[in-house]
Amino acid sequence: MKFSIGLDFGTNSVRSLIVRTDGSGEVSSAVVNYPSGKQGILLDSSDHHVARQSPKDYLASLEKATVEAIAIAKAECPDFDTAAVIGIGVDTTGSSPLPVDEKNQALAEYPKWQDNLAAQCWLWKDHTSYEEAATITKIAAKERPQYLAKCGNTYSSEWWWSKIWRCLKSSPDVFEAAYSWVEIADWIPSQLAGVTDPKEIMRGVCAAGHKAFYADEWGGLPDKEFLSMLEPKLADLRDRLYEKAHDASVAAGTLSAEWAGRLGLPEGIPLAMGEFDVHYGAIGCGVEEGTLVKVIGTSTCDCAVVKASGDVPDVPGICGIVRGSILPGYFGVEAGQSAVGDLFKWWVEGVCQGEDSTHVELTKEAAKLEIGQSGLLALDWNNGNRTVLVDQRLTGLILGQTLHTSQAEIYRALIEATAFGARMILERISEYGIPVNRIVCAGGIAEKNAMLMQIYADITGREMLVTASSQACALGAAIGAAVVAGAEKGGHADFESAQKAMSGLKPDRYLPDPERHAKYNRLFALYKQVHDNFGGVEAVDLSNVMKDLLDIKEGK
Amino acid sequence: MKFSIGLDFGTNSVRSLIVRTDGSGEVSSAVVNYPSGKQGILLDSSDHHVARQSPKDYLASLEKATVEAIAIAKAECPDFDTAAVIGIGVDTTGSSPLPVDEKNQALAEYPKWQDNLAAQCWLWKDHTSYEEAATITKIAAKERPQYLAKCGNTYSSEWWWSKIWRCLKSSPDVFEAAYSWVEIADWIPSQLAGVTDPKEIMRGVCAAGHKAFYADEWGGLPDKEFLSMLEPKLADLRDRLYEKAHDASVAAGTLSAEWAGRLGLPEGIPLAMGEFDVHYGAIGCGVEEGTLVKVIGTSTCDCAVVKASGDVPDVPGICGIVRGSILPGYFGVEAGQSAVGDLFKWWVEGVCQGEDSTHVELTKEAAKLEIGQSGLLALDWNNGNRTVLVDQRLTGLILGQTLHTSQAEIYRALIEATAFGARMILERISEYGIPVNRIVCAGGIAEKNAMLMQIYADITGREMLVTASSQACALGAAIGAAVVAGAEKGGHADFESAQKAMSGLKPDRYLPDPERHAKYNRLFALYKQVHDNFGGVEAVDLSNVMKDLLDIKEGK
Repeated sequence: MKFSIGLDFGTNSVRSLIVRTDGSGEVSSAVVNYPSGKQGILLDSSDHHVARQSPKDYLASLEKATVEAIAIAKAECPDFDTAAVIGIGVDTTGSSPLPVDEKNQALAEYPKWQDNLAAQCWLWKDHTSYEEAATITKIAAKERPQYLAKCGNTYSSEWWWSKIWRCLKSSPDVFEAAYSWVEIADWIPSQLAGVTDPKEIMRGVCAAGHKAFYADEWGGLPDKEFLSMLEPKLADLRDRLYEKAHDASVAAGTLSAEWAGRLGLPEGIPLAMGEFDVHYGAIGCGVEEGTLVKVIGTSTCDCAVVKASGDVPDVPGICGIVRGSILPGYFGVEAGQSAVGDLFKWWVEGVCQGEDSTHVELTKEAAKLEIGQSGLLALDWNNGNRTVLVDQRLTGLILGQTLHTSQAEIYRALIEATAFGARMILERISEYGIPVNRIVCAGGIAEKNAMLMQIYADITGREMLVTASSQACALGAAIGAAVVAGAEKGGHADFESAQKAMSGLKPDRYLPDPERHAKYNRLFALYKQVHDNFGGVEAVDLSNVMKDLLDIKEGK
Repeated sequence: MKFSIGLDFGTNSVRSLIVRTDGSGEVSSAVVNYPSGKQGILLDSSDHHVARQSPKDYLASLEKATVEAIAIAKAECPDFDTAAVIGIGVDTTGSSPLPVDEKNQALAEYPKWQDNLAAQCWLWKDHTSYEEAATITKIAAKERPQYLAKCGNTYSSEWWWSKIWRCLKSSPDVFEAAYSWVEIADWIPSQLAGVTDPKEIMRGVCAAGHKAFYADEWGGLPDKEFLSMLEPKLADLRDRLYEKAHDASVAAGTLSAEWAGRLGLPEGIPLAMGEFDVHYGAIGCGVEEGTLVKVIGTSTCDCAVVKASGDVPDVPGICGIVRGSILPGYFGVEAGQSAVGDLFKWWVEGVCQGEDSTHVELTKEAAKLEIGQSGLLALDWNNGNRTVLVDQRLTGLILGQTLHTSQAEIYRALIEATAFGARMILERISEYGIPVNRIVCAGGIAEKNAMLMQIYADITGREMLVTASSQACALGAAIGAAVVAGAEKGGHADFESAQKAMSGLKPDRYLPDPERHAKYNRLFALYKQVHDNFGGVEAVDLSNVMKDLLDIKEGK
């Protein structure tokens, strides 16, 4: 019996998961919350766009979580042996770039920089760089349209170059002090491998291709001429970044003696290439051509793969279509919604001032409502719109309120808004020829909220499946580790074999009801009107919207 | 020393106010909540448009309140004597029609009908008849455009004919049982006067002109040919209504022996003509040509007067311009907003599940916000839009939410929304030549919420004055009573003299700040865009709205 470990770095915590590589189950797992800031996030009270994270938190928390998972495995699983652990995989949030020195040490570890927000990891949901993103989009549209085409024609403030440029502008001292920048998806494996030169870090094509305009066909990262058009110092930085990014068919390195000691694991076991959480999550959900994986969490990420030999069109508004970004040999296609669980959390905690249990109460009340009964319609844009509008400078909207509108009605309207957003994505990728034969969902919300899942099925008109593992991202990283370890070491020869053995589906299936789907089609048409006008697609007449909602409410 | 009494029938309670006719002050007052239903309103859980009220509540509560006010006056005011009370005035909500039998008794007093919602008073905010209102508007636009022109070109579901027709359609048994229908503004004085024949009720031109298409120039109520186009039974009903409606220069009757006994007041003292609360409120606030009175309560009503000799244009979207409806000898001009205090109450009680004290807390927090800091924009349409769109089938809207938006931010956005709505009205009436040289506000909100008043001043760019009396409506009714009593009885010869003596202003004045006004102009332009598209004025492009709000938020 062999084991692999998946380390899943989420927005607020890291999970360490130990699984059997033969697919006979998950052995143990442990979660450690990042100790710094508010729920692990460093905020700036004067700018709500700021979201940073301490790199020290990552290393301390991964050690604690892994040591704990191993202790549980030893206590509860007689056949577990640390000597039988054959590899480690890491997935993280992203784009979450971190400034490092010439020895691959995070600047934030220096006493001088430890309290400087710009010297921390720039978490995916940091939106301070919206102006830089807009400028990059503008210049690229004119000078390098091929760069933009692969990421939905709009460069986001959540991404690599926007953030680094923002740092250069707002904290030039930090930018100057940084020798290089690394995605934490690459930096954490490089730390486990003991890499002390940033140029030797194995960089994943997942982050590079989706967030940094990287593509083999134009020679890797954006050319220096283009970067100079943004800012000459970014062109200089290119020399201190990387030439080549890799897919998950190769290892990111092997476990260093130091970290083998800290974790109590064998030195030299392979480390899978770092990928974003949802990409390994898609692998953990059994993604293959024709499968759309939806990882529904604080935000939602949609992933699909298309054989790299085939013809893949550019899809407007889709964040990225990148060769090898999920599975080797396939284009990885990624879309997403910027606020899903976060939206419900905002409503419950931020506005209603409720607690965790309030979600359960409001769900119970909302489940009693008929479709359209509240007369409400909402947009799911409280954190901008990632797909298909790719516009961070959009905000939330709720309409249809009367003097009787309740908390639960708005809660349901927000859930429906995210489902309408999900349908927009599904329709867009289908329209451009990416096949979707089945939808597999993952994440706590997919597992726990049956009402939400049924609403998603009814609104999209598609069956919603749920992946078997509650830790799909960590499982995917562990699958990646089993693949880089190889079949001869007790892992797997390839992802197909590893996924077949190690991933599966829950028995729960949410089938769309044709009558409810038809009702929701009327609401979706209204959603689309409001979406299109506020989102800049078309200045449509909205004078019917409130009246149609009242008609639907009154059963007309 | 002489006294008059004003009886103010609000949405939830009745107030009895005793004042000195020489203007030396208010003697005493007492409020009694209507005992039935939810806060005095009879609701139907299956239809949120229903809002009815028990006529028995009116009579029982007015008696209780007046007896109590007299007891207080006797106890606290040595010069008070019931024999020195020279008249009573009544103001009420409206259009609030009530079905009565051939003896002027409310159908609701019959055991057979007492639990039938259709047999009660159809409270102003009952919106069940929106279909009838739309049909009346449609037919009148084609057949009698002159009727519509005086009430803003749209007939409302809050008004007389819509409600009575709705009763005919939805509860034909009640309609058949009713000999006649009476506005409670007329019915309550008729009860106090002991009128036992509906055709002898003195009907006020205030309700008739604003809500029932009454005008002397076309012979009173709408002609029977027109009513037959709606429904022949409405034409039949016309014969059992009235030929002539009156302004406040004449009395509605004199106090009957029975009611004199019940109240402990002199038999035969005159009863002022019934008017709507805000119309007498305008009088209590000292309305004259050039003054706009805003009575800010659960809803807001705006009143102005224009000399009846002058030229008064039809103003699109203004609920009514009626000769004699406020002051004799003047056109009364009425506009309004369907939800103001109700909107804040909905947010605090309905959504935030707070209490009365929450208003104070949220106001305190909201007052700390800079203009535009929340990034929010709301429409004040949770109860439809009375002016200038005259459309009940509109609903609320809030946009600009992020994941950090708070209760207090939305509270402030709702206050601002009502101020933008107020500015729409002000601009519309000014545009059509009705002079506004000063604005006098009344109502609990105007007295208590200095933040709101400052926001109103800053958004409209106009000074906001506050009337001296906390009971402007009841005071206006008492002024009306002093006028019908006449100077020789210790009252007044006319309204000018009565208003001069009996009404005044508080020292508080809210001056607009030019810088804040300029900032709000940017927000108002966005409000207008959203207002115009959802309200059916023009299908404008809204793609700038969220971005402009973010720009303003970020100080750009």
